[in-house]
Amino acid sequence: MATSRTKATDADIVLRVLRRTRQIRDFRPEPVPDELLNEILEVGRWTGSAKNRQPARFVLIRDRARLDRLAELAPTARHLSRAAAGIAIVMPGENEEWDAYDEGRVAERLLVGANALDLGAGIGWATPSARAAVADLLGVTPPAFVRTFVSIGYPSEAAMAPKSAPGTARRPLADVVRYERFG
Amino acid sequence: MATSRTKATDADIVLRVLRRTRQIRDFRPEPVPDELLNEILEVGRWTGSAKNRQPARFVLIRDRARLDRLAELAPTARHLSRAAAGIAIVMPGENEEWDAYDEGRVAERLLVGANALDLGAGIGWATPSARAAVADLLGVTPPAFVRTFVSIGYPSEAAMAPKSAPGTARRPLADVVRYERFG
Repeated sequence: MATSRTKATDADIVLRVLRRTRQIRDFRPEPVPDELLNEILEVGRWTGSAKNRQPARFVLIRDRARLDRLAELAPTARHLSRAAAGIAIVMPGENEEWDAYDEGRVAERLLVGANALDLGAGIGWATPSARAAVADLLGVTPPAFVRTFVSIGYPSEAAMAPKSAPGTARRPLADVVRYERFG
Repeated sequence: MATSRTKATDADIVLRVLRRTRQIRDFRPEPVPDELLNEILEVGRWTGSAKNRQPARFVLIRDRARLDRLAELAPTARHLSRAAAGIAIVMPGENEEWDAYDEGRVAERLLVGANALDLGAGIGWATPSARAAVADLLGVTPPAFVRTFVSIGYPSEAAMAPKSAPGTARRPLADVVRYERFG
């Protein structure tokens, strides 16, 4: 698309990463350098939040036995067992609505940051029934809690293969956008 | 920082945008080309969601009177009155936790997308007491609802000026990261 905007190339690079970023849940076994994990954590640190509370804390987990145990406790985060590292997001538990919203914001930014570094990342949740055991394992004291795990690693070939023909799994723009009024 | 990773330049470009993206609430009066608004909506469309529900719908608002009215109804989104356009995010209202989390994810990606295009964007909420009036104005039928408005425009000079010395408004990494265990 021809545009007159400045820095078209930089914008295109960022938009491409934003569009290609999707959940990766299968990883190659190689480790991820600490330097890259730190860059992802920096991205998390700079994520905005309601009233600039900066409510999120991050537990970086690289210990294999701990990752495996968390994968058992939180079935939708079982990809932790194949990940080089995991980030548990600790939220304060003071306001359910703000916590969920701000946690979604920061989780999303971690995903995009990992993708920018040619890593893969996947979001998994500790469902409510698992949260006490997860909190115990990670030393998190209520009302603070962990809902989100972000698995990080180099994507496996299988994870990178397209799962469906382009366009079939995603609603078209005309389905999701309205103008001036919704209905 | 010296690294051996490939495409370091592309990664650095994306990480720079991720780090610099913050809320912009004051805008120059010039309009934003529809083409750029469409690129931002495409970024929204491709945002992931729990169980791939793709629950978010977007109402793009460019009508000045409508933006002004929404700014009155939703005081934390009063920046709509200075924005070239606004996006109202319509969520299904079926699961409070999932809705808030997925809405945070998509709002965050819209912010980053706008920044990538050298635009500014700010998040505002319709608080619960305003939601009935907002839904009525936008033709949204319960249980669907609008909580988030994203204002979009070219940042004013005042909005781009740093508000505080670097580092004073943001917690340092050592405050927000733990290793293996939180406490």
